[in-house]
Amino acid sequence: MATRRIAILGGGAMGTACATVLAENDEVRPVLWVREPELADAMQTSRRNERYLPDVPIPDVVEITSDRAAAVADVAMLVAAVPSQFLSATMKPFAELVSPECPIVSVIKGIEIGTFRRPTEILLQVLGERPVASMCGPSHAEEVGLRLPASVVVAASDDQFAAQVQQDFTTDRFRVYTNPDLVGVEFAGALKNVIAIAAGISDGLGYGDNAKSALITRGLVEIGRFGQSLGADPETFAGLAGIGDLMTTCFSRHSRNRGFGERIGRGETLQQILDSTPKVAEGVPTTRSVHELAVSRGIDLPITREIAAMLFEGKSPLEATDALMNRPVGSE
Amino acid sequence: MATRRIAILGGGAMGTACATVLAENDEVRPVLWVREPELADAMQTSRRNERYLPDVPIPDVVEITSDRAAAVADVAMLVAAVPSQFLSATMKPFAELVSPECPIVSVIKGIEIGTFRRPTEILLQVLGERPVASMCGPSHAEEVGLRLPASVVVAASDDQFAAQVQQDFTTDRFRVYTNPDLVGVEFAGALKNVIAIAAGISDGLGYGDNAKSALITRGLVEIGRFGQSLGADPETFAGLAGIGDLMTTCFSRHSRNRGFGERIGRGETLQQILDSTPKVAEGVPTTRSVHELAVSRGIDLPITREIAAMLFEGKSPLEATDALMNRPVGSE
Repeated sequence: MATRRIAILGGGAMGTACATVLAENDEVRPVLWVREPELADAMQTSRRNERYLPDVPIPDVVEITSDRAAAVADVAMLVAAVPSQFLSATMKPFAELVSPECPIVSVIKGIEIGTFRRPTEILLQVLGERPVASMCGPSHAEEVGLRLPASVVVAASDDQFAAQVQQDFTTDRFRVYTNPDLVGVEFAGALKNVIAIAAGISDGLGYGDNAKSALITRGLVEIGRFGQSLGADPETFAGLAGIGDLMTTCFSRHSRNRGFGERIGRGETLQQILDSTPKVAEGVPTTRSVHELAVSRGIDLPITREIAAMLFEGKSPLEATDALMNRPVGSE
Repeated sequence: MATRRIAILGGGAMGTACATVLAENDEVRPVLWVREPELADAMQTSRRNERYLPDVPIPDVVEITSDRAAAVADVAMLVAAVPSQFLSATMKPFAELVSPECPIVSVIKGIEIGTFRRPTEILLQVLGERPVASMCGPSHAEEVGLRLPASVVVAASDDQFAAQVQQDFTTDRFRVYTNPDLVGVEFAGALKNVIAIAAGISDGLGYGDNAKSALITRGLVEIGRFGQSLGADPETFAGLAGIGDLMTTCFSRHSRNRGFGERIGRGETLQQILDSTPKVAEGVPTTRSVHELAVSRGIDLPITREIAAMLFEGKSPLEATDALMNRPVGSE
């Protein structure tokens, strides 16, 4: 049986980790497209991604290139692994190169700020109509690359493509479940960063395990309700792409969004944090977008509203906590 | 307006924490019944529960007694805060003393091993027909007693009683949501300990955040499905009594069930752990009961089955992991 050539577009941590997973499948030949030629060359030589995933050896079977046409020639499938804010610009040069039917799976967590487009919406608009899918879940790239166990979900525009992604990616350490809710899987991956900031603020205030777990649970209800208003199935938020990914983010010492929230909880302002770090946590613009969209649609998102007030209106974390704890209680 | 006298039965950490919460409500006079007269006397003197909750001052408004009749005289409500395995025996002497209509809320997490009775089932059988409720959720007693924020749910045999419990317990730091699913709330509180052992095993194996979050997410699906077969609403498992409490347990350094699992994951056997500690983790007999009941009913619980095999049949954690990771993957 002929092997399937699969191109991973994006040489960051997640793209590199995807290449190592696909390399375990004897029926797949992975090719990793890296935007910067110098990084591609260095990775070819050292068989490591020293910049984004230094601890993970890259198997010899993985082809590494910065040549767009070479990367996507004769591929059976594309994997998009580019930050959501750069996705549209990064994919445009590929539009002329990829075959019209070639399906594409996104491993991107995020929405496009301003337009509120999901990654597969961007892909369809840039590349044209084709099967699309999103694979999400608790999947820190470092752990995936080191073959620690992980389980994720894939949701696609058609069941056959979802089954194909499942078959290509599943190994004895990386389990891929299918899920019918493409919209929900993509929104869950983006909206979780708002709640990760909230969890970090709780940590920064020294509030303990009860408060943080309750905040995550209620936050999940809140982003699930918001997702539903955008067409998602709220059940998706109870699965791997929802609570699964949210837990990993909210309890990890390494999550940038949680860590950002912790600094807010300790009393720093957004401006102070922006002045001290070059990279803003993705949850910050996501919070602003979600809050504005919720207000314009008349959807009540109390946790998001209080985070937005802390970040953009100077409300103190203690005042925000009081506001959350003193609302009338209702049913769960 | 006359104040409501409420008796908390059980002087452990949770009973003491409940008394401190109720003490904040001006309309409630809490009385804490402590089984051992010496402990009750010591608590009266020091206004602390040095044995079970040493860091928390007990407000003067809390009456403390070891006299059963005095404790339950003229009370508007009872709170049961006794470990589930001793609940039946502890409540029997109260059967003659409590008024026939007096409602009772359980803050007990656990099922009776062997009989599989839920706490409110035991209470109804021992005390006779009356309104009953269960209050569960992420609520480490130490944090509740120190007025760190917490949110829980209450489910009752009738809506009016649920609303009364909500009103009595809600403070600016302790939020009580109502939930219509009494069976689900009680089973969620018990079944979570099985998954907490699994999470600990993952920690002991050094498997990282992805694996642990996926295990908790899939474990939640599993105990939700089992709970449903026993009459619970699976949605309850997505709320505070389910995933909320589960997160607190699985990510806390202090959880006895998680810590027990960690030792199993590191290679100790059940017998070695039993030989070294006087107190067995409650999840151990719960796992045996759940596994046996699931087998007899033909319900597939893969995570519970592997934990039972590790604990009771000497299967190694690595073999069990392989068995879990190499099952055919399906939909979420």
